[in-house]
Amino acid sequence: MNLAELTPEVLPYLGQAAYIQLAIFEAIARAVMLSPTVRAKEALGPAAGEALGKHEKLVGELRRRVDDPSSVMAAFAPAIDNYAAVIRGSDWYESLASIYLTAGILDDFFVLLATGLEGDIGPRAAQLISVETGRAAIVVLLNDAIAEDPSLGSRLALWGRRLVGDTLLVARSAIHHTENARTDEERIEPVFTELIAKHSRRMDGLGLTA
Amino acid sequence: MNLAELTPEVLPYLGQAAYIQLAIFEAIARAVMLSPTVRAKEALGPAAGEALGKHEKLVGELRRRVDDPSSVMAAFAPAIDNYAAVIRGSDWYESLASIYLTAGILDDFFVLLATGLEGDIGPRAAQLISVETGRAAIVVLLNDAIAEDPSLGSRLALWGRRLVGDTLLVARSAIHHTENARTDEERIEPVFTELIAKHSRRMDGLGLTA
Repeated sequence: MNLAELTPEVLPYLGQAAYIQLAIFEAIARAVMLSPTVRAKEALGPAAGEALGKHEKLVGELRRRVDDPSSVMAAFAPAIDNYAAVIRGSDWYESLASIYLTAGILDDFFVLLATGLEGDIGPRAAQLISVETGRAAIVVLLNDAIAEDPSLGSRLALWGRRLVGDTLLVARSAIHHTENARTDEERIEPVFTELIAKHSRRMDGLGLTA
Repeated sequence: MNLAELTPEVLPYLGQAAYIQLAIFEAIARAVMLSPTVRAKEALGPAAGEALGKHEKLVGELRRRVDDPSSVMAAFAPAIDNYAAVIRGSDWYESLASIYLTAGILDDFFVLLATGLEGDIGPRAAQLISVETGRAAIVVLLNDAIAEDPSLGSRLALWGRRLVGDTLLVARSAIHHTENARTDEERIEPVFTELIAKHSRRMDGLGLTA
Protein backbone atom coordinates (compact mmCIF):
# COMPACT_ATOMS: atom_id res chain seq x y z
CA MET A 1 0.00 0.00 0.00
CA ASN A 2 1.54 3.28 -1.03
CA LEU A 3 -0.95 6.09 -0.87
CA ALA A 4 1.94 8.55 -0.70
CA GLU A 5 2.26 8.22 -4.47
CA LEU A 6 -1.16 9.80 -4.82
CA THR A 7 0.31 13.11 -3.57
CA PRO A 8 -2.77 15.13 -2.68
CA GLU A 9 -2.43 18.89 -2.91
CA VAL A 10 -2.30 20.63 0.43
CA LEU A 11 -5.11 23.20 0.10
CA PRO A 12 -7.83 20.85 -1.18
CA TYR A 13 -6.72 18.24 1.35
CA LEU A 14 -7.03 20.69 4.26
CA GLY A 15 -10.25 22.24 2.92
CA GLN A 16 -12.04 18.94 2.48
CA ALA A 17 -10.72 17.45 5.73
CA ALA A 18 -11.72 20.61 7.65
CA TYR A 19 -15.23 20.65 6.18
CA ILE A 20 -15.67 16.94 6.88
CA GLN A 21 -14.75 17.50 10.54
CA LEU A 22 -17.30 20.33 10.66
CA ALA A 23 -19.93 17.95 9.23
CA ILE A 24 -18.99 15.31 11.83
CA PHE A 25 -19.29 17.98 14.52
CA GLU A 26 -22.75 18.97 13.27
CA ALA A 27 -23.87 15.33 13.23
CA ILE A 28 -22.68 14.82 16.81
CA ALA A 29 -24.23 18.11 17.97
CA ARG A 30 -27.51 16.99 16.40
CA ALA A 31 -27.24 13.69 18.28
CA VAL A 32 -26.64 15.66 21.50
CA MET A 33 -29.85 17.61 20.86
CA LEU A 34 -31.86 14.48 20.13
CA SER A 35 -30.46 12.48 23.06
CA PRO A 36 -33.22 10.84 25.09
CA THR A 37 -31.41 11.48 28.41
CA VAL A 38 -29.12 14.05 29.98
CA ARG A 39 -26.65 11.21 30.55
CA ALA A 40 -26.48 10.53 26.80
CA LYS A 41 -26.07 14.25 26.00
CA GLU A 42 -23.25 14.33 28.49
CA ALA A 43 -21.59 11.24 27.03
CA LEU A 44 -21.54 12.76 23.53
CA GLY A 45 -20.04 16.11 24.57
CA PRO A 46 -16.38 15.10 24.29
CA ALA A 47 -16.89 13.63 20.80
CA ALA A 48 -18.47 16.92 19.68
CA GLY A 49 -15.59 18.90 21.14
CA GLU A 50 -13.05 16.61 19.51
CA ALA A 51 -14.52 16.98 16.00
CA LEU A 52 -14.80 20.76 16.45
CA GLY A 53 -11.22 20.86 17.67
CA LYS A 54 -9.98 18.92 14.61
CA HIS A 55 -11.96 21.26 12.38
CA GLU A 56 -10.46 24.35 13.99
CA LYS A 57 -6.90 23.01 13.86
CA LEU A 58 -7.30 22.21 10.16
CA VAL A 59 -8.75 25.69 9.58
CA GLY A 60 -5.75 27.07 11.46
CA GLU A 61 -3.48 25.28 8.97
CA LEU A 62 -5.50 26.77 6.11
CA ARG A 63 -5.26 30.23 7.64
CA ARG A 64 -1.46 29.99 7.59
CA ARG A 65 -1.68 29.47 3.83
CA VAL A 66 -4.65 31.55 2.60
CA ASP A 67 -6.54 34.64 3.75
CA ASP A 68 -9.94 33.03 3.55
CA PRO A 69 -10.19 29.39 4.72
CA SER A 70 -13.98 29.40 4.19
CA SER A 71 -13.58 29.82 0.46
CA VAL A 72 -11.36 26.72 0.29
CA MET A 73 -13.86 24.71 2.30
CA ALA A 74 -16.88 26.02 0.41
CA ALA A 75 -15.89 24.06 -2.71
CA PHE A 76 -16.53 20.84 -0.80
CA ALA A 77 -19.69 21.94 1.02
CA PRO A 78 -22.37 20.82 -1.49
CA ALA A 79 -21.04 17.25 -1.83
CA ILE A 80 -20.38 16.84 1.90
CA ASP A 81 -23.73 18.38 2.92
CA ASN A 82 -25.46 15.96 0.57
CA TYR A 83 -23.46 13.04 1.97
CA ALA A 84 -24.29 14.14 5.53
CA ALA A 85 -28.01 14.09 4.70
CA VAL A 86 -27.74 10.59 3.17
CA ILE A 87 -25.99 9.08 6.20
CA ARG A 88 -28.11 10.89 8.81
CA GLY A 89 -30.24 7.81 9.49
CA SER A 90 -33.89 7.49 10.41
CA ASP A 91 -33.49 7.62 14.18
CA TRP A 92 -31.05 8.49 16.94
CA TYR A 93 -29.39 5.05 16.94
CA GLU A 94 -28.76 5.07 13.22
CA SER A 95 -27.34 8.57 13.59
CA LEU A 96 -24.99 7.41 16.34
CA ALA A 97 -23.89 4.40 14.27
CA SER A 98 -23.29 6.69 11.29
CA ILE A 99 -21.15 9.07 13.30
CA TYR A 100 -19.03 6.33 14.82
CA LEU A 101 -18.60 4.31 11.62
CA THR A 102 -18.26 7.04 8.99
CA ALA A 103 -16.07 9.32 11.08
CA GLY A 104 -13.92 6.24 11.67
CA ILE A 105 -13.53 5.52 7.95
CA LEU A 106 -12.95 9.16 7.02
CA ASP A 107 -10.44 9.80 9.80
CA ASP A 108 -8.54 6.63 8.79
CA PHE A 109 -8.58 7.75 5.18
CA PHE A 110 -7.35 11.30 5.78
CA VAL A 111 -4.62 9.98 8.08
CA LEU A 112 -3.45 7.64 5.29
CA LEU A 113 -3.75 10.38 2.67
CA ALA A 114 -1.66 12.73 4.83
CA THR A 115 1.42 10.57 4.19
CA GLY A 116 1.48 11.88 0.62
CA LEU A 117 1.37 15.59 1.51
CA GLU A 118 4.50 17.61 0.80
CA GLY A 119 6.27 19.43 3.62
CA ASP A 120 5.81 18.98 7.36
CA ILE A 121 2.03 19.27 7.26
CA GLY A 122 1.55 15.53 6.60
CA PRO A 123 2.62 14.17 9.99
CA ARG A 124 0.92 17.09 11.78
CA ALA A 125 -2.39 16.52 9.99
CA ALA A 126 -2.19 12.75 10.57
CA GLN A 127 -1.60 13.26 14.26
CA LEU A 128 -4.42 15.72 14.81
CA ILE A 129 -6.96 13.72 12.82
CA SER A 130 -6.10 10.35 14.38
CA VAL A 131 -7.38 11.34 17.85
CA GLU A 132 -10.69 9.58 18.47
CA THR A 133 -11.07 9.10 22.20
CA GLY A 134 -14.38 11.01 22.29
CA ARG A 135 -16.22 8.55 20.07
CA ALA A 136 -15.62 5.64 22.48
CA ALA A 137 -18.74 6.85 24.33
CA ILE A 138 -20.83 6.09 21.23
CA VAL A 139 -19.78 2.43 21.38
CA VAL A 140 -21.01 2.23 24.97
CA LEU A 141 -24.35 3.88 24.11
CA LEU A 142 -24.90 1.55 21.14
CA ASN A 143 -23.79 -1.61 22.94
CA ASP A 144 -26.22 -0.86 25.78
CA ALA A 145 -29.09 -0.23 23.37
CA ILE A 146 -28.38 -3.36 21.31
CA ALA A 147 -28.16 -5.48 24.48
CA GLU A 148 -31.68 -4.34 25.37
CA ASP A 149 -33.11 -4.79 21.88
CA PRO A 150 -31.44 -7.39 19.63
CA SER A 151 -33.59 -6.34 16.64
CA LEU A 152 -31.82 -2.98 16.79
CA GLY A 153 -28.57 -4.90 16.22
CA SER A 154 -29.89 -6.44 12.99
CA ARG A 155 -31.09 -3.07 11.78
CA LEU A 156 -27.80 -1.35 12.59
CA ALA A 157 -25.76 -4.15 10.95
CA LEU A 158 -27.62 -3.49 7.70
CA TRP A 159 -27.23 0.27 8.15
CA GLY A 160 -23.52 -0.06 8.91
CA ARG A 161 -22.95 -2.00 5.68
CA ARG A 162 -24.92 0.56 3.66
CA LEU A 163 -22.78 3.46 4.91
CA VAL A 164 -19.56 2.12 3.42
CA GLY A 165 -20.27 2.83 -0.23
CA ASP A 166 -21.22 6.48 0.18
CA THR A 167 -18.31 7.05 2.52
CA LEU A 168 -15.76 5.55 0.14
CA LEU A 169 -17.14 7.82 -2.60
CA VAL A 170 -16.31 10.83 -0.42
CA ALA A 171 -12.84 9.40 0.17
CA ARG A 172 -12.35 8.77 -3.54
CA SER A 173 -13.27 12.38 -4.34
CA ALA A 174 -10.36 13.52 -2.18
CA ILE A 175 -7.76 11.77 -4.28
CA HIS A 176 -5.87 13.82 -6.82
CA HIS A 177 -6.09 11.79 -9.99
CA THR A 178 -3.12 11.41 -12.28
CA GLU A 179 -3.46 11.11 -16.03
CA ASN A 180 -3.34 7.34 -15.64
CA ALA A 181 -6.70 6.21 -14.27
CA ARG A 182 -5.67 2.55 -14.28
CA THR A 183 -2.58 3.23 -12.16
CA ASP A 184 -4.71 5.28 -9.76
CA GLU A 185 -7.13 2.39 -9.32
CA GLU A 186 -4.27 0.04 -8.56
CA ARG A 187 -3.01 2.41 -5.89
CA ILE A 188 -6.43 3.11 -4.37
CA GLU A 189 -7.53 -0.52 -4.18
CA PRO A 190 -5.34 -1.63 -1.26
CA VAL A 191 -6.13 1.58 0.63
CA PHE A 192 -9.84 0.85 0.42
CA THR A 193 -9.23 -2.75 1.45
CA GLU A 194 -7.47 -1.45 4.55
CA LEU A 195 -10.26 1.04 5.30
CA ILE A 196 -12.87 -1.70 5.01
CA ALA A 197 -10.88 -4.01 7.27
CA LYS A 198 -10.78 -1.32 9.95
CA HIS A 199 -14.50 -0.63 9.43
CA SER A 200 -15.19 -4.34 9.99
CA ARG A 201 -13.32 -4.21 13.29
CA ARG A 202 -15.48 -1.26 14.39
CA MET A 203 -18.60 -3.22 13.38
CA ASP A 204 -17.29 -6.18 15.43
CA GLY A 205 -16.82 -3.85 18.40
CA LEU A 206 -20.52 -3.01 18.17
CA GLY A 207 -21.38 -6.72 17.96
CA LEU A 208 -22.54 -6.24 14.35
CA THR A 209 -21.72 -8.48 11.40
CA ALA A 210 -19.94 -6.43 8.75
CA MET B 1 -25.66 44.92 45.52
CA ASN B 2 -24.81 41.93 47.64
CA LEU B 3 -25.72 38.72 45.92
CA ALA B 4 -23.25 36.90 48.17
CA GLU B 5 -25.90 36.93 50.90
CA LEU B 6 -28.08 34.71 48.74
CA THR B 7 -25.56 31.86 49.24
CA PRO B 8 -26.50 29.38 46.52
CA GLU B 9 -25.73 25.75 47.28
CA VAL B 10 -22.83 24.37 45.29
CA LEU B 11 -24.40 21.31 43.64
CA PRO B 12 -27.57 22.97 42.29
CA TYR B 13 -25.47 25.94 41.19
CA LEU B 14 -23.06 23.75 39.23
CA GLY B 15 -25.83 21.50 37.88
CA GLN B 16 -27.93 24.36 36.57
CA ALA B 17 -24.97 26.35 35.25
CA ALA B 18 -23.60 23.23 33.49
CA TYR B 19 -26.94 22.39 31.88
CA ILE B 20 -27.43 26.01 30.77
CA GLN B 21 -24.03 25.95 29.06
CA LEU B 22 -25.05 22.72 27.33
CA ALA B 23 -28.26 24.42 26.15
CA ILE B 24 -26.23 27.41 24.88
CA PHE B 25 -23.93 24.97 23.08
CA GLU B 26 -26.90 23.24 21.45
CA ALA B 27 -28.36 26.58 20.34
CA ILE B 28 -25.04 27.61 18.77
CA ALA B 29 -24.56 24.21 17.14
CA ARG B 30 -28.06 24.54 15.67
CA ALA B 31 -27.12 27.99 14.33
CA VAL B 32 -23.98 26.45 12.78
CA MET B 33 -26.17 23.87 11.01
CA LEU B 34 -28.60 26.50 9.75
CA SER B 35 -25.91 28.96 8.64
CA PRO B 36 -26.50 30.21 5.11
CA THR B 37 -22.76 30.21 4.28
CA VAL B 38 -19.62 28.25 5.14
CA ARG B 39 -18.14 31.55 6.36
CA ALA B 40 -20.94 31.93 8.92
CA LYS B 41 -20.56 28.30 10.08
CA GLU B 42 -16.88 28.96 10.50
CA ALA B 43 -17.46 32.18 12.44
CA LEU B 44 -19.72 30.41 14.94
CA GLY B 45 -17.36 27.50 15.64
CA PRO B 46 -15.38 29.17 18.45
CA ALA B 47 -18.56 30.21 20.28
CA ALA B 48 -19.79 26.60 20.15
CA GLY B 49 -16.47 25.33 21.47
CA GLU B 50 -16.47 27.92 24.23
CA ALA B 51 -19.94 26.97 25.53
CA LEU B 52 -19.08 23.26 25.34
CA GLY B 53 -15.82 23.96 27.17
CA LYS B 54 -17.65 25.81 29.98
CA HIS B 55 -20.15 22.97 30.21
CA GLU B 56 -17.40 20.36 30.49
CA LYS B 57 -15.44 22.32 33.09
CA LEU B 58 -18.58 22.72 35.21
CA VAL B 59 -19.29 18.99 34.81
CA GLY B 60 -15.70 18.37 35.89
CA GLU B 61 -16.40 20.33 39.09
CA LEU B 62 -19.55 18.26 39.63
CA ARG B 63 -17.60 15.03 39.08
CA ARG B 64 -15.23 15.99 41.90
CA ARG B 65 -18.24 16.12 44.21
CA VAL B 66 -20.68 13.43 43.01
CA ASP B 67 -20.47 10.14 41.10
CA ASP B 68 -23.13 11.07 38.59
CA PRO B 69 -23.11 14.67 37.32
CA SER B 70 -25.94 13.91 34.88
CA SER B 71 -28.37 13.24 37.72
CA VAL B 72 -27.64 16.68 39.21
CA MET B 73 -28.16 18.35 35.83
CA ALA B 74 -31.26 16.34 34.99
CA ALA B 75 -33.30 18.17 37.64
CA PHE B 76 -32.92 21.36 35.60
CA ALA B 77 -33.41 19.85 32.15
CA PRO B 78 -37.21 20.22 31.76
CA ALA B 79 -37.28 23.93 32.66
CA ILE B 80 -34.17 24.79 30.62
CA ASP B 81 -35.29 22.74 27.60
CA ASN B 82 -38.60 24.56 27.69
CA TYR B 83 -36.84 27.93 27.98
CA ALA B 84 -34.53 27.00 25.07
CA ALA B 85 -37.57 26.27 22.89
CA VAL B 86 -39.18 29.61 23.81
CA ILE B 87 -36.10 31.69 22.95
CA ARG B 88 -35.21 29.75 19.78
CA GLY B 89 -36.68 32.43 17.50
CA SER B 90 -38.42 32.11 14.17
CA ASP B 91 -35.35 32.38 11.94
CA TRP B 92 -31.55 32.24 11.97
CA TYR B 93 -31.13 35.92 12.89
CA GLU B 94 -33.48 35.70 15.87
CA SER B 95 -31.61 32.56 16.97
CA LEU B 96 -28.29 34.40 16.76
CA ALA B 97 -29.67 37.36 18.70
CA SER B 98 -31.05 34.97 21.34
CA ILE B 99 -27.73 33.23 21.76
CA TYR B 100 -25.77 36.45 22.09
CA LEU B 101 -28.23 38.22 24.38
CA THR B 102 -29.44 35.38 26.62
CA ALA B 103 -26.04 33.75 27.03
CA GLY B 104 -24.80 37.22 27.96
CA ILE B 105 -27.43 37.67 30.68
CA LEU B 106 -27.05 34.14 32.03
CA ASP B 107 -23.25 34.23 32.09
CA ASP B 108 -23.38 37.60 33.90
CA PHE B 109 -25.84 36.17 36.38
CA PHE B 110 -23.92 33.00 37.17
CA VAL B 111 -20.72 35.00 37.56
CA LEU B 112 -22.47 37.28 40.09
CA LEU B 113 -24.07 34.31 41.85
CA ALA B 114 -20.67 32.60 42.16
CA THR B 115 -19.57 35.23 44.68
CA GLY B 116 -21.93 33.64 47.22
CA LEU B 117 -20.63 30.08 46.85
CA GLU B 118 -18.74 28.63 49.80
CA GLY B 119 -15.15 27.44 49.39
CA ASP B 120 -12.78 28.12 46.50
CA ILE B 121 -15.25 27.10 43.78
CA GLY B 122 -16.75 30.62 43.58
CA PRO B 123 -13.81 32.45 41.96
CA ARG B 124 -13.04 29.43 39.77
CA ALA B 125 -16.62 29.19 38.47
CA ALA B 126 -16.78 32.96 37.91
CA GLN B 127 -13.57 32.90 35.93
CA LEU B 128 -14.50 30.00 33.68
CA ILE B 129 -18.02 31.32 32.97
CA SER B 130 -16.94 34.90 32.28
CA VAL B 131 -15.02 34.00 29.09
CA GLU B 132 -17.06 35.14 26.08
CA THR B 133 -14.63 35.87 23.26
CA GLY B 134 -16.33 33.37 20.92
CA ARG B 135 -19.63 35.25 20.83
CA ALA B 136 -18.03 38.41 19.42
CA ALA B 137 -18.44 36.80 15.99
CA ILE B 138 -22.22 36.88 16.44
CA VAL B 139 -22.14 40.66 16.82
CA VAL B 140 -20.32 40.94 13.49
CA LEU B 141 -22.80 38.62 11.73
CA LEU B 142 -25.79 40.54 13.12
CA ASN B 143 -24.34 44.01 12.48
CA ASP B 144 -23.67 43.04 8.85
CA ALA B 145 -27.18 41.68 8.39
CA ILE B 146 -28.85 44.71 10.03
CA ALA B 147 -26.78 47.09 7.89
CA GLU B 148 -28.17 45.37 4.80
CA ASP B 149 -31.75 45.26 6.03
CA PRO B 150 -32.83 47.92 8.56
CA SER B 151 -36.23 46.25 9.06
CA LEU B 152 -34.33 43.30 10.56
CA GLY B 153 -33.03 45.75 13.18
CA SER B 154 -36.56 46.71 14.22
CA ARG B 155 -37.60 43.09 14.44
CA LEU B 156 -34.53 42.11 16.48
CA ALA B 157 -34.96 45.09 18.83
CA LEU B 158 -38.43 43.79 19.68
CA TRP B 159 -37.15 40.24 20.00
CA GLY B 160 -34.25 41.33 22.20
CA ARG B 161 -36.63 43.05 24.60
CA ARG B 162 -38.90 39.99 24.72
CA LEU B 163 -36.04 37.68 25.72
CA VAL B 164 -35.33 39.47 28.99
CA GLY B 165 -38.38 38.34 30.96
CA ASP B 166 -37.95 34.61 30.29
CA THR B 167 -34.23 34.80 30.92
CA LEU B 168 -34.63 36.55 34.27
CA LEU B 169 -37.12 33.83 35.26
CA VAL B 170 -34.40 31.23 34.67
CA ALA B 171 -32.00 33.34 36.73
CA ARG B 172 -34.53 33.71 39.50
CA SER B 173 -35.04 29.94 39.66
CA ALA B 174 -31.33 29.56 40.46
CA ILE B 175 -31.55 31.57 43.65
CA HIS B 176 -31.83 29.66 46.90
CA HIS B 177 -34.72 31.31 48.66
CA THR B 178 -34.61 32.04 52.38
CA GLU B 179 -37.70 31.96 54.58
CA ASN B 180 -38.03 35.70 54.12
CA ALA B 181 -39.38 36.32 50.62
CA ARG B 182 -39.40 40.08 51.09
CA THR B 183 -35.72 40.20 52.03
CA ASP B 184 -34.91 38.01 49.02
CA GLU B 185 -36.69 40.40 46.70
CA GLU B 186 -34.75 43.32 48.12
CA ARG B 187 -31.50 41.48 47.47
CA ILE B 188 -32.42 40.29 43.98
CA GLU B 189 -33.70 43.63 42.73
CA PRO B 190 -30.32 45.42 42.31
CA VAL B 191 -28.82 42.29 40.73
CA PHE B 192 -31.52 42.27 38.07
CA THR B 193 -31.04 46.00 37.53
CA GLU B 194 -27.35 45.33 36.87
CA LEU B 195 -28.14 42.43 34.50
CA ILE B 196 -30.57 44.60 32.53
CA ALA B 197 -28.03 47.45 32.30
CA LYS B 198 -25.48 45.05 30.80
CA HIS B 199 -28.13 43.64 28.47
CA SER B 200 -28.88 47.19 27.27
CA ARG B 201 -25.21 47.70 26.48
CA ARG B 202 -25.22 44.51 24.38
CA MET B 203 -28.36 45.74 22.58
CA ASP B 204 -26.56 49.06 21.93
CA GLY B 205 -23.63 47.13 20.49
CA LEU B 206 -26.03 45.59 17.99
CA GLY B 207 -27.44 49.03 17.18
CA LEU B 208 -30.77 48.04 18.77
CA THR B 209 -32.84 50.13 21.16
CA ALA B 210 -33.27 48.23 24.41
